[in-house]
Amino acid sequence: MGEVDLNADLGEGYGAYACGDDGAMLGLVTSANVACGLHAGDPEIMAATFRLARARGVAVGAPPGFPDLWGFGRRRMPFTPAEIERLVAYQVGAAQALASYAGHRVTYVKAHGALANLAAAEREVADAIARAVKAVDPGLALLAIALTAQVEAGEAQGLAVHQEIFADRGYTEDGQLIARGKPGALITDAQEAADRVLAMVEAGAIITAQGARLPTPIRSICVHGDSDHAVATARTVRARLEGAGVRLAAFAA
Amino acid sequence: MGEVDLNADLGEGYGAYACGDDGAMLGLVTSANVACGLHAGDPEIMAATFRLARARGVAVGAPPGFPDLWGFGRRRMPFTPAEIERLVAYQVGAAQALASYAGHRVTYVKAHGALANLAAAEREVADAIARAVKAVDPGLALLAIALTAQVEAGEAQGLAVHQEIFADRGYTEDGQLIARGKPGALITDAQEAADRVLAMVEAGAIITAQGARLPTPIRSICVHGDSDHAVATARTVRARLEGAGVRLAAFAA
Amino acid sequence: MGEVDLNADLGEGYGAYACGDDGAMLGLVTSANVACGLHAGDPEIMAATFRLARARGVAVGAPPGFPDLWGFGRRRMPFTPAEIERLVAYQVGAAQALASYAGHRVTYVKAHGALANLAAAEREVADAIARAVKAVDPGLALLAIALTAQVEAGEAQGLAVHQEIFADRGYTEDGQLIARGKPGALITDAQEAADRVLAMVEAGAIITAQGARLPTPIRSICVHGDSDHAVATARTVRARLEGAGVRLAAFAA
Amino acid sequence: MGEVDLNADLGEGYGAYACGDDGAMLGLVTSANVACGLHAGDPEIMAATFRLARARGVAVGAPPGFPDLWGFGRRRMPFTPAEIERLVAYQVGAAQALASYAGHRVTYVKAHGALANLAAAEREVADAIARAVKAVDPGLALLAIALTAQVEAGEAQGLAVHQEIFADRGYTEDGQLIARGKPGALITDAQEAADRVLAMVEAGAIITAQGARLPTPIRSICVHGDSDHAVATARTVRARLEGAGVRLAAFAA
Repeated sequence: MGEVDLNADLGEGYGAYACGDDGAMLGLVTSANVACGLHAGDPEIMAATFRLARARGVAVGAPPGFPDLWGFGRRRMPFTPAEIERLVAYQVGAAQALASYAGHRVTYVKAHGALANLAAAEREVADAIARAVKAVDPGLALLAIALTAQVEAGEAQGLAVHQEIFADRGYTEDGQLIARGKPGALITDAQEAADRVLAMVEAGAIITAQGARLPTPIRSICVHGDSDHAVATARTVRARLEGAGVRLAAFAA
Repeated sequence: MGEVDLNADLGEGYGAYACGDDGAMLGLVTSANVACGLHAGDPEIMAATFRLARARGVAVGAPPGFPDLWGFGRRRMPFTPAEIERLVAYQVGAAQALASYAGHRVTYVKAHGALANLAAAEREVADAIARAVKAVDPGLALLAIALTAQVEAGEAQGLAVHQEIFADRGYTEDGQLIARGKPGALITDAQEAADRVLAMVEAGAIITAQGARLPTPIRSICVHGDSDHAVATARTVRARLEGAGVRLAAFAA
Repeated sequence: MGEVDLNADLGEGYGAYACGDDGAMLGLVTSANVACGLHAGDPEIMAATFRLARARGVAVGAPPGFPDLWGFGRRRMPFTPAEIERLVAYQVGAAQALASYAGHRVTYVKAHGALANLAAAEREVADAIARAVKAVDPGLALLAIALTAQVEAGEAQGLAVHQEIFADRGYTEDGQLIARGKPGALITDAQEAADRVLAMVEAGAIITAQGARLPTPIRSICVHGDSDHAVATARTVRARLEGAGVRLAAFAA
Repeated sequence: MGEVDLNADLGEGYGAYACGDDGAMLGLVTSANVACGLHAGDPEIMAATFRLARARGVAVGAPPGFPDLWGFGRRRMPFTPAEIERLVAYQVGAAQALASYAGHRVTYVKAHGALANLAAAEREVADAIARAVKAVDPGLALLAIALTAQVEAGEAQGLAVHQEIFADRGYTEDGQLIARGKPGALITDAQEAADRVLAMVEAGAIITAQGARLPTPIRSICVHGDSDHAVATARTVRARLEGAGVRLAAFAA
């Protein structure tokens, strides 16, 4: 049946502020995007999360985001693509160093939040991120939202690019995420999310709101790490995939 | 006559805030400690400073400091040695990545401001810094305040350790910096500073306030990068050394 | 039986980070210390908390702390008493303005976290806080840790000073909080905490670890707002007091 | 000949970072917009600037800006009008408190940088600012960019509104600032700036790029506080106005 990766944003607390149940999530995902300190996370949490991921055999990636702790990286901040290059390089380097410190190794980069959405839609921003990753370490893989500008941008820089789908989001007819706030944007039922994920993985295609199949090399499934139902959804998705004979494995270990 | 390095803290602006004349300083020093974004500097300034340093053939180091932009890294902040380890790793990684991005390479680490003073006096803190450097990249050299705990701590971790003296500071009888505020702590005259530096380099020894000579492998001279007279002092020190046949060269290029 | 106030730190989230169950706590306390944005809180949370407090008839105070979001205001930061004066003035003014904006009114100031502990022990710091409060608005009351330097400092500035005890802390023979980490420092059982509070309120005295009674005009009981058991403890303490005929009322409405 | 006010942004340093020559500027302007700590300034600088302004007899205002120290308040940040209301209230309150502390009194509010530009163009944002000012203290005046949405918004809230022109900017035919980067946007010659200011004050009208006169109750002239030529320009403008018999006086003392 092939294999697929399960990834989530972890290490998203800050100082005394907790966020999500990282311990439980690390028992379910195969890749952890560990926040780099500008939109969430701090050096203490980064080191602890990398260490725990290593102990659990979970691959780790750097999820650079906008420097916006107040907005948790979810707001589009006024940075130019050139400035975004430097922001990405900074965060990737910091994450690599703390992973090394914790005895682990960052193997991929995945843009976070508003920066990811921007890079999905604007090739110029996607190029900036890919250039930064290549400049810092061309051996790093890029985890890209499927069928977006991120994919071509990463490939144009010669990076290994892997595509992800979202467990809890609906897709438009051209394979993009249905915008939040529109009907069908969010799948809130864990069983339904798991069913959809399995169908897409088995089909090797994104299945749109109207049922069309868009062939896509789906290499990872993104589940959320910070919501109340994060652990339950991740557990359900994982069980459904394993029950159907799909092997869960990191794409870049 | 041998050779010595001239180092200064550069890239210490933040956003619209400027600090010192980095362009002029990069024509005088052989090593630049480029602020890593927590006590000064930002990704834009880091990338620009690394790029300029490369163009000028100046070696670059990472100067991790306390996360204290308001205090410019000059205040002792309440972090434990273990927390300091993570803070150092974070900053060194970020600096390495932005140097790579700018086509340059970080070759050494030198603790900044209050963190440096703390590491000079407390072996536990010096150990924390040395451990962090080793964990991130054991090929990095450590630039240490001469005759302090930093030296033994770096050597205990197997790092290449180089010792620096300060062009504008007086020394106690046991080779430590005279505390600011005490008589003889600061040398404000550039000519006097240059004379003293040359005498110490020629003697291969720190010369104390009372004239004693403490043999020391002086490998670098620290000049300030941010004061009004920074450029004049650096120029005077450099001219005096070169006039006496001392070659100026980075210790870790 | 007289009356007493029940106060807690509320509004301690930051952006997407939540902290405690403010809605439930506002149904239990009579005074809310609403974080001012430097150690916790942000303008959105401040306005929302002031508005909710007004709707529930809960008095509000400003709890100035060290500017240390990472440390949640719990670390002693390197500020001089003179700098603390300005930090306190800044936060009190911001809180007053947002309370006005929300249709409420700040009636007291209570130092937060590490700043409060410092002000309890060091008269110079207590004086700085009291001077700042008086300069900003001499009509503001001061809520002080009982039997500490805060009391005399506030009275020396002519402020109305009210003394508080802690529901979950043990007391030394001279009426100070037993340091965290020492035996008897923390009362973790809600029933025991409630019993102790009632005994002290009825006695009009702080009861020490060895049972001595130190007469004290106890005007407020501090319960924690951010722990897991915060709501349960507050509810238990309130019920015990009301059950004994003690009226719960804000000291400065 | 009537009278006019001269205002500048002062107190825009941060910690060790200096910005402009506030001491010299306070000898020239009649109103100082003292940065409130979110886009520039800190409690230390605020208190010192308020104190110096009081000693020099200069009126002081609060210039709320976006919370963006890195961008110095010059970038449009992603806040909604409702969030801007709270941001403005916060900063105005903090400034009032520190002015009180320094023995002075904030008498007006003037939006800063990107927030000011946004409020000039978008009535919804201008309304948010005016509402916040009214909620915090309806006795505060509003200093508005002439002929913009700020004017009507302030008047709709019943605030005293005063209009300002810029000494170093050109004006479009409908009285708006020519966008930076377009021809005629900036007047770099101090004499030319002074000539234009005097002509506009004497005409009681904004004079556009093509020479049209748009009658405007010009109550204040804004000069920059942070550029290299700030002091020279302020001095030249002031001298030209006084030489022509125009009295310099704060609009809200």
